[in-house]
Amino acid sequence: MRSLRVGLAGLGTVGQSLVYLLRENRVEIERNAGMPIEIVCVVSRTPKPEVDIGDATFSTDINSLLSEDVDVVVELIGGTETAWDIAKGVLATHKPFVTANKAMLAEYGSDIFDGHTQVGFEAAVAGGIPIIGGLRTGVSGNKIDWIAGIINGTSNYIITSMEEEGKLFEEALEDAQRLGYAEADPSFDIDGIDAGQKLAILAAIAFGIPISMAGIHMEGISQIEVEDLQYARELGFRIKHLGVAKQTANGTQLSVHPALVSETELLAQVEGVTNAVLIGANAVGSLMFVGPGAGGSATASSVISDLIEVARGTIISAQFGHVREKYISIEETESCFYLNIPAVDRAGVFAEVAEILSREGISIESVIQKSQATRKNNGETWVPIVILTNLVLEATMESAQNELQKSASVVGPIRRIRVSQFNS
Amino acid sequence: MRSLRVGLAGLGTVGQSLVYLLRENRVEIERNAGMPIEIVCVVSRTPKPEVDIGDATFSTDINSLLSEDVDVVVELIGGTETAWDIAKGVLATHKPFVTANKAMLAEYGSDIFDGHTQVGFEAAVAGGIPIIGGLRTGVSGNKIDWIAGIINGTSNYIITSMEEEGKLFEEALEDAQRLGYAEADPSFDIDGIDAGQKLAILAAIAFGIPISMAGIHMEGISQIEVEDLQYARELGFRIKHLGVAKQTANGTQLSVHPALVSETELLAQVEGVTNAVLIGANAVGSLMFVGPGAGGSATASSVISDLIEVARGTIISAQFGHVREKYISIEETESCFYLNIPAVDRAGVFAEVAEILSREGISIESVIQKSQATRKNNGETWVPIVILTNLVLEATMESAQNELQKSASVVGPIRRIRVSQFNS
Repeated sequence: MRSLRVGLAGLGTVGQSLVYLLRENRVEIERNAGMPIEIVCVVSRTPKPEVDIGDATFSTDINSLLSEDVDVVVELIGGTETAWDIAKGVLATHKPFVTANKAMLAEYGSDIFDGHTQVGFEAAVAGGIPIIGGLRTGVSGNKIDWIAGIINGTSNYIITSMEEEGKLFEEALEDAQRLGYAEADPSFDIDGIDAGQKLAILAAIAFGIPISMAGIHMEGISQIEVEDLQYARELGFRIKHLGVAKQTANGTQLSVHPALVSETELLAQVEGVTNAVLIGANAVGSLMFVGPGAGGSATASSVISDLIEVARGTIISAQFGHVREKYISIEETESCFYLNIPAVDRAGVFAEVAEILSREGISIESVIQKSQATRKNNGETWVPIVILTNLVLEATMESAQNELQKSASVVGPIRRIRVSQFNS
Repeated sequence: MRSLRVGLAGLGTVGQSLVYLLRENRVEIERNAGMPIEIVCVVSRTPKPEVDIGDATFSTDINSLLSEDVDVVVELIGGTETAWDIAKGVLATHKPFVTANKAMLAEYGSDIFDGHTQVGFEAAVAGGIPIIGGLRTGVSGNKIDWIAGIINGTSNYIITSMEEEGKLFEEALEDAQRLGYAEADPSFDIDGIDAGQKLAILAAIAFGIPISMAGIHMEGISQIEVEDLQYARELGFRIKHLGVAKQTANGTQLSVHPALVSETELLAQVEGVTNAVLIGANAVGSLMFVGPGAGGSATASSVISDLIEVARGTIISAQFGHVREKYISIEETESCFYLNIPAVDRAGVFAEVAEILSREGISIESVIQKSQATRKNNGETWVPIVILTNLVLEATMESAQNELQKSASVVGPIRRIRVSQFNS
């Protein structure tokens, strides 16, 4: 029987899991693929494979991969430029190409998919969750209105750990690093860049636009305090770090930011490193996919599903549009907002805050102000005033916040978090 | 440009939505399919289409469909035998066939798939949720250990409405009927048959076994009382109606029954008519798909995704095995159990209950017995003793329950509900 001959670049966590699983799940894979799938050569930066690669050849010369007799190349080596060099080489041969590299796709996606080559990238977004297949096939008959996803497990883990254990951001981050959920330089995750790259890929599929980081507003989670998580809960919400892609009447909105999610939404219950992607679409209504967003074995599961599609001959060329949509900036979007305003504890201060908001046309949905929450700072007693606003334009909110910040009654930086509206 | 010519049988709720959506989402569908998809002929039992079918021909003669010049036939007419007649006719022509008919697949699936014909059936299980694609492609690189799903929206709606509004089963069922969630004859839904048919299809894909209703243990929800939902909640659980397929060391377990699900599981939070399918697999860990399990538009969304696969040429022949697995009967399975034992309110009765359980080697995990829950019946005061057992063989539990039921201290029928264990 013919087999699918695989060339593998990269033997890190995911690469090692791939080698292991192709052996361990051999029977199931052959049944689903219609043929055996075997790795015939491996290239890696490490001098010696740390896993049994069987009869496959091994080399540290990455270029050697391109001259091997393989049916498909899997790139798990990471790094935008090295991976792009491999991709270019493979694409020139018109062989199918499978990658888990979201950074490369976000940067060079348009070049890669312009060749109409068969490229599998299920593993590039949300690890083991088959969200690429879900979007490209599952909801292919729909107009997609929006996507909202918990697509950075590190951020979600940190928020959950702050919420449940009352840990400070820095402590929760250290835990995440110790557990291997966060890199030594965590900025890629906690500043929202990782989620932004994934969002660029999801939005391209959902809306048929080019893959691009342009127009994505990115905010991380480092400004969130434990107190915000507690107030959000009191108001009936949880805070999650979301990637949001949305079609509005004025253009496409792409943003990554922390958000209050109503506790009545299943998405609000997704905790720890788990990822979840919610899709709103005109035929199906809403769908949610939940699962592990990272990890060697889960990510390798997605890589194998791509290889099985290559073997079946059912992998499709991506049909992204070439016309860049009109993006709307975050200032042009409307949200309800959570505001945490540290204000002097004195009669009339709340009225002053309400007056400033009202002057900008912002109405208040809920307020929490607790006398037992008073604190002292430089001899002055102050208290957080927590407000949930009605729907307001971001630019208007920004301007109102600036006004509030100038007030002598406000003693520290105001924190502002958007409230997610999925059904608008 | 070439188009995909569709022949449609059936113009009920799903058929009408299909006609509407193929027009409404024309641009997106053509982009994803690579060609336009158009319905060229419709056959239906109704004398006249209740929706604008454009240029398509219309006939009430179902057989006329087979002589039409079409690329693919969609069967949405329902009814096992009529649908099977259509299926046989289409399969004889070797044309691709798309169906939403779980009853027909559960009955004739082996015959249909034996022909290795391209058959799309995404709409047959869990309506708009792309669970067939998720299983056939998303987790195709995995050994699947188990599936647990809320796959009958009617039952889930009734349970939610009993739990949240304290309604009696009969009242909740009437509501469901009034809202169109339950048929005039609801037995198909509430006795677990509908869920059983869906489970047969899911298990066949997951485990590579023939589609068959043989070996499926089916229980409905009509025995559940509001009190059970309340006690379950006190114990940290919700009750859901589940379909469960599981590989055990001794064989495949297929069962449909109400179950206590820990409130820490996301599945426990799925409410109303929403469906959810949880998959446990060796590479990915666990994945959950959540969405609308019924409704014209959501189901048509799945039908269109199949048609797009036909147009792309990526629809695959189902690779179900021919060897029937060894099934284990429900008596051979192990569960923890919730027991609701109506017992005389007298000193020593709980000790007697515990003694009977202990004699069968059943240990008790939790107990609820409330003096304020006493009731009178024929002059005798009684109280429900609610017990959560440790893991025990179903046959042992059955025998212990029979013993308990014989006791003079037990004044009415004992209710027993399994506790779901996903991670065992």
